[in-house]
Amino acid sequence: MMKEACGICAVYNSANTAQLINMMLFGLQHRGQESAGISVFNGRKIGTYKKQGLVRSVFTPKIIKKYNGISGIGHVRYSTVGESKIENAQPLSALFNKGYVAIAHNGTLRNADKIRRKLVRSGAIFQTDTDSEVILHLLAQNIKYDFLDALIESLLQLRGAYSLTILHNESIIGIRDPQGYRPLSIGQKGDSYMLASETSALNLIDARFVRDVEPGEIIEIKDNKIRSIKFAKSVKRQCIFELIYFARPDSIVFKHNVSAFREKTGQMLAERHSTPADLVIPVPDSGIYAAIGYSNKSGIPLKFGLSRNHYIGRTFIKPYETERINAVKMKLNPNADIIRGKRLIVIDDSVVRGTTSKEIVKLLFEFGAKEVHLRIASPSVKAPCYYGIDTPRTKELIANSMDVSELRVFLGCTSLEFLTIDETLECVDEKPSFCIECFTG
Amino acid sequence: MMKEACGICAVYNSANTAQLINMMLFGLQHRGQESAGISVFNGRKIGTYKKQGLVRSVFTPKIIKKYNGISGIGHVRYSTVGESKIENAQPLSALFNKGYVAIAHNGTLRNADKIRRKLVRSGAIFQTDTDSEVILHLLAQNIKYDFLDALIESLLQLRGAYSLTILHNESIIGIRDPQGYRPLSIGQKGDSYMLASETSALNLIDARFVRDVEPGEIIEIKDNKIRSIKFAKSVKRQCIFELIYFARPDSIVFKHNVSAFREKTGQMLAERHSTPADLVIPVPDSGIYAAIGYSNKSGIPLKFGLSRNHYIGRTFIKPYETERINAVKMKLNPNADIIRGKRLIVIDDSVVRGTTSKEIVKLLFEFGAKEVHLRIASPSVKAPCYYGIDTPRTKELIANSMDVSELRVFLGCTSLEFLTIDETLECVDEKPSFCIECFTG
Amino acid sequence: MMKEACGICAVYNSANTAQLINMMLFGLQHRGQESAGISVFNGRKIGTYKKQGLVRSVFTPKIIKKYNGISGIGHVRYSTVGESKIENAQPLSALFNKGYVAIAHNGTLRNADKIRRKLVRSGAIFQTDTDSEVILHLLAQNIKYDFLDALIESLLQLRGAYSLTILHNESIIGIRDPQGYRPLSIGQKGDSYMLASETSALNLIDARFVRDVEPGEIIEIKDNKIRSIKFAKSVKRQCIFELIYFARPDSIVFKHNVSAFREKTGQMLAERHSTPADLVIPVPDSGIYAAIGYSNKSGIPLKFGLSRNHYIGRTFIKPYETERINAVKMKLNPNADIIRGKRLIVIDDSVVRGTTSKEIVKLLFEFGAKEVHLRIASPSVKAPCYYGIDTPRTKELIANSMDVSELRVFLGCTSLEFLTIDETLECVDEKPSFCIECFTG
Amino acid sequence: MMKEACGICAVYNSANTAQLINMMLFGLQHRGQESAGISVFNGRKIGTYKKQGLVRSVFTPKIIKKYNGISGIGHVRYSTVGESKIENAQPLSALFNKGYVAIAHNGTLRNADKIRRKLVRSGAIFQTDTDSEVILHLLAQNIKYDFLDALIESLLQLRGAYSLTILHNESIIGIRDPQGYRPLSIGQKGDSYMLASETSALNLIDARFVRDVEPGEIIEIKDNKIRSIKFAKSVKRQCIFELIYFARPDSIVFKHNVSAFREKTGQMLAERHSTPADLVIPVPDSGIYAAIGYSNKSGIPLKFGLSRNHYIGRTFIKPYETERINAVKMKLNPNADIIRGKRLIVIDDSVVRGTTSKEIVKLLFEFGAKEVHLRIASPSVKAPCYYGIDTPRTKELIANSMDVSELRVFLGCTSLEFLTIDETLECVDEKPSFCIECFTG
Repeated sequence: MMKEACGICAVYNSANTAQLINMMLFGLQHRGQESAGISVFNGRKIGTYKKQGLVRSVFTPKIIKKYNGISGIGHVRYSTVGESKIENAQPLSALFNKGYVAIAHNGTLRNADKIRRKLVRSGAIFQTDTDSEVILHLLAQNIKYDFLDALIESLLQLRGAYSLTILHNESIIGIRDPQGYRPLSIGQKGDSYMLASETSALNLIDARFVRDVEPGEIIEIKDNKIRSIKFAKSVKRQCIFELIYFARPDSIVFKHNVSAFREKTGQMLAERHSTPADLVIPVPDSGIYAAIGYSNKSGIPLKFGLSRNHYIGRTFIKPYETERINAVKMKLNPNADIIRGKRLIVIDDSVVRGTTSKEIVKLLFEFGAKEVHLRIASPSVKAPCYYGIDTPRTKELIANSMDVSELRVFLGCTSLEFLTIDETLECVDEKPSFCIECFTG
Repeated sequence: MMKEACGICAVYNSANTAQLINMMLFGLQHRGQESAGISVFNGRKIGTYKKQGLVRSVFTPKIIKKYNGISGIGHVRYSTVGESKIENAQPLSALFNKGYVAIAHNGTLRNADKIRRKLVRSGAIFQTDTDSEVILHLLAQNIKYDFLDALIESLLQLRGAYSLTILHNESIIGIRDPQGYRPLSIGQKGDSYMLASETSALNLIDARFVRDVEPGEIIEIKDNKIRSIKFAKSVKRQCIFELIYFARPDSIVFKHNVSAFREKTGQMLAERHSTPADLVIPVPDSGIYAAIGYSNKSGIPLKFGLSRNHYIGRTFIKPYETERINAVKMKLNPNADIIRGKRLIVIDDSVVRGTTSKEIVKLLFEFGAKEVHLRIASPSVKAPCYYGIDTPRTKELIANSMDVSELRVFLGCTSLEFLTIDETLECVDEKPSFCIECFTG
Repeated sequence: MMKEACGICAVYNSANTAQLINMMLFGLQHRGQESAGISVFNGRKIGTYKKQGLVRSVFTPKIIKKYNGISGIGHVRYSTVGESKIENAQPLSALFNKGYVAIAHNGTLRNADKIRRKLVRSGAIFQTDTDSEVILHLLAQNIKYDFLDALIESLLQLRGAYSLTILHNESIIGIRDPQGYRPLSIGQKGDSYMLASETSALNLIDARFVRDVEPGEIIEIKDNKIRSIKFAKSVKRQCIFELIYFARPDSIVFKHNVSAFREKTGQMLAERHSTPADLVIPVPDSGIYAAIGYSNKSGIPLKFGLSRNHYIGRTFIKPYETERINAVKMKLNPNADIIRGKRLIVIDDSVVRGTTSKEIVKLLFEFGAKEVHLRIASPSVKAPCYYGIDTPRTKELIANSMDVSELRVFLGCTSLEFLTIDETLECVDEKPSFCIECFTG
Repeated sequence: MMKEACGICAVYNSANTAQLINMMLFGLQHRGQESAGISVFNGRKIGTYKKQGLVRSVFTPKIIKKYNGISGIGHVRYSTVGESKIENAQPLSALFNKGYVAIAHNGTLRNADKIRRKLVRSGAIFQTDTDSEVILHLLAQNIKYDFLDALIESLLQLRGAYSLTILHNESIIGIRDPQGYRPLSIGQKGDSYMLASETSALNLIDARFVRDVEPGEIIEIKDNKIRSIKFAKSVKRQCIFELIYFARPDSIVFKHNVSAFREKTGQMLAERHSTPADLVIPVPDSGIYAAIGYSNKSGIPLKFGLSRNHYIGRTFIKPYETERINAVKMKLNPNADIIRGKRLIVIDDSVVRGTTSKEIVKLLFEFGAKEVHLRIASPSVKAPCYYGIDTPRTKELIANSMDVSELRVFLGCTSLEFLTIDETLECVDEKPSFCIECFTG
């Protein structure tokens, strides 16, 4: 399974800034479960609180009260490497020559190491391991007097993916890199403005979705005005995996309704990769919408032959090791009466390492499936992501070491088909605007 | 929402008794989230461990190692009254004149207070507030030398609902009351035997489902033999709500596949309570199967217009109070693009207090629904349950204070229909064998 | 080191019962650090709360508020065997034929197993492993109608040590066994009455010390009256170790001021077991008073050559294992400038296993002591205690395997002397009234 | 009560660096209880771990294993302002143009704000609120190529108190400011070298005390060699309160044995401020050594009329508020039998706010004292400390608003005398080398 790295948000001019950030981060929790943080401007300076854990446990009533302010930004993070350290949690906040600033970053900078080395040589002190810290130092070393001027010059040095929310004194700023790899939307609620990685976070707080921040655009919300600056020519390369897997189904991302996109991929599978079968079975939760699409298109009835157990947690002990019990069964409960004797079309969103798919196939046969036709609602993943998603290394990507027919044998399914890259892109408007590097390598 | 009170299980003759109980309780977690406990016989005496919390946090590797044994029983509990006390957690274990014994109970005894008073007068000492403790004392005060003889005489004095697993030295016993209100099934895995409230718990550990314990039956597993004793004439009154709401969809309960029953209720709604509409929308997770049934029968496409946020927890702060935000939205995320302008058939499993349904209807209209036709896959609940389910008091049951047309106005929906009692019973085999007291009052 | 097993208390007729019990248990914390508990009568029934941990963490403001009542009892416990189980924590509370009752017990019953077997044969159900539970069952099986009559008959069957506080509806009862092994005192504060293991707990709440409960006496406080019943002829065998080690120095126990007794033992050591030296050094904290006595009597100045580190906790990791560092140094910090080149008289209260003493002697020599004359302010311990103290088994008692001259060699000290049994008894009034079984075997 | 702000240490070239730092920090725990942290060089980079809590809970076996390295530094901290933030915990570690560096700081920089503003203007980014961070930035902005050269130039800009341990790649550095306000000692153990705020921390790990780092000296331990650099002319102003109160009695601080100094102050009180009395009573633990000195000098016997309860914790609830019970009694248990009818000389180390002293005097009279002669083993505190100690503001210092005779009336004692500044200085060698600003204002 792939893991998203971050969700970000911001609030401008509210009496309940901390509460709204709490709620938006809760609505972005699927983008990062490791730590959550908030920075607010209290009229005098920026205060920051960040802690490991889910939003619901980080934001206690005491913290929400203490860290309320006029404006603020928030961040949820999934730490991608080793033991996560609280030092690396975000927002990053600092005092420097342009005042108090806090930054929340979603994405990965490709030239962070190079810039860091350069900045270090010219006197910067790096106190975290995050690539996001280079943005702070670029800003600080920039000699431009004006914050926005310095910001633009800094951004122009960055390569890679960055959606940013920035708190600068009481003003908030939203930025998407020129390729627009990661989403960022603008919302409004009364006199307050919001930024959020996904529109579902705006829905949660009854904010009106205004529009997306555009690739290469800076949105500055200051003195109760929104100002737009195009800092670079946009060459859109929006992450297709946001639509396939990461974003919440009720979000509008890159101008696409996520669940509608997923249904379309399912319909496409039904049109181009169909096979006679008795039932369509989604791998929950991520395969559900594509399965609905497949079922509606093909007329083959949808059934929940696997249902997800939401009580499972990180800390569940693996007793099945002693008992040699299929681990996937703890999470995806198979329904024998549905499965038994049936020819199944099993719909999953993607195949990364292949280990879970293999166990699912095995499980379905154990519970009596006659045939298991695995249909994947995206192309096979051949390359790790360099733009903010935590994917396995190249050699762990199963599609790299096997072709589809070898993979079918490895997974043990009756048949196996992926959406092609072209078919996937047929499901979106404006095909060339999407990043498909993980499929092309 | 109704709340189930308990899940129980037992293992006989395994090298991994504690592990298997842990896994089965994990598979029964939906029946009780307040506390979990285990009693095992270690060859000499019974050891018991119980703690508040989810199974995954109660059963640490250390506890599983320490509380392993030859045979054992387990229990998960949802405490129904006030602050739950660890003293009231189960299993109850004791040393008395028939040796070491531990009991796990699912159900509610109707004459517990009366028996308790009688037992107290004749010298019993009650150390918990649970009705389950009377079973221990009946056993102890019984003069029959033989454990089973004493057990039978004790059971004959009980009125109400009880599925029990009992650990008596190394033997395990499974019992269902003569009405069979609550389920209990027998499983086998190699030379080991199991008992579990639901078959899904047996599936999880790769145990073969043998059969149900029958109403009025004692199953004793001792000396590697299963023995069946009919201790009372069975007059089946199995809880229909196990099928409607409580049991896991992948369980076979009362000889019915739970998900299949729920689909049937959805089909029945489509047959008898249909209305023209654009989409069928389930209230997740409990309304999903009925919605699939409705969609398949009516040909109206199913869409997930509401999706459940599983990050929500008990401790989530209610910031929406300040912001006057619809609380249900935090849990059930509406998808505007699906809902907007559509005539919706919204399927839920049941209506108890009516408060959640009211908020759901409001939310759907806010997100643009044109019509909201609420269809409930069970009759309206008119009476509290006296047999082991935590329902509100009579006056809080909305169906008691309003008829359907008043309720429609209260909920704000375009139309509202329930399955009738007869229609519900048409979805099961052997109609008279079910308890429908909560519908008839 | 020996470990005390329990502290008990009670409050009658206060508006702040739970608060006062909390404070008294805090003042008795040295008698048991494993769990703490409270039972209160709220006008209708008895509520009980008990939890593992120190008093300060068990009694939160919420618990103190929730478990307030008219009268109540409290208990702190050090679990003596294996992993302590919350089931074995006290008070034990129950409903039985004489109403609601709760019991807190300090001491050990010698015939508990025998009585338990008898009670089990006649129908009792034991739900804990504690010997204290037999008292409940004796009471319940007693046919006497009157609670006190039944209580007296029950007590007469017990052998061993028991100081008890009992809550029976709103009345409280204090009891000491006929030998009076463990202490129990009566206090008064306005219209409220208290019972506590030690008078220091009464001091803490500004209660006036009235008098001790006498051995063989029942004190019933009911209807605002104190009533005394002698239920058995007293043959005093009060635990001398309460004075030597367990009790708080500011308590009056068995009519002796504890710190004054300890000073006397030190004076006695100076009189009968003196040796030329430069300094008197206590082993803190328990050896301090005897050291003051020795110093005052001998004129040899007292210095704190060892000072205790109170940050040490149960969970301190033992890194010194890798570094082969003397573990005792982490707890008892030696002061080289005081010790170096000096002939030391080192005063400790007792020697049990001998391991700590050996390390202390080694440490003092390492830090430059010229001579280490170990003086123990009690006789050598030759037998485990059967009356409520957690002592090592016979073979672990170092005084059992070596005579004093062998022990001196083992410990590595320059000279070693113990108080004799007679000398110890010279420090108390009424010599024959003390239990010295642990010295005589 | 005054609160020390920090303890620091370092280890060079050990196989058990993390273990040794853990143990030394444990031995420095009295200097800071809020957070603890470690930075180690693992051969490639510096890893840092810091957490709120006591050393024994921060340093788990897992952390000690994970953060082992060749060399390292450690820090314990008492946060002086508001809610302590983990972001402000130390060591501070960073990557900058002179490699990986980590700093642990004990003291307070007087010109930190001024330097911070200057650094910010020239491009520095401050990520914490600590004054210690300015040292990092001074180092980074310094153009000198050599680390030590840059360090010296940086130090020369600092005003105020700083004892520092620095980890620079695998080398460690120890520094004391030219006034030597705070202590820092060098230790050796085999081929390994150590630095620690106090010698007692060296004792704990069996390290040999080599000598103090001198005021104005840099000690660099690199390539297995110790190198000393005098970076500034020393004008000693060592903190007299380290001797009076902060340091552990078994430490040698500023070449004085701490407990010996305290005894001397007690003797001085006996010589210059004596009064006829029956007993000398220390306020434990800090008044003990002075009381021994007083008793030895005056011949008036020492008794522990107050004994300290070490079970008290931060979270102890204040039930005495309802009961109007003297709070100090919970911590300092009075012994009525010792106190009653006696003329007491009560010895405390210092008087800051006066509130605790007032309660102690009241308590002693309540428990029967005939006279309470309060003798303070230091001068009265008239000014807050600007060099690393957390003292109250000027107006909260009781000696500022009252002269001694008013203060005696306020405290309610029979007589009250302080050591004069001169008398205090008579107890040290090299009088002018001590900072007495808190007495002179």
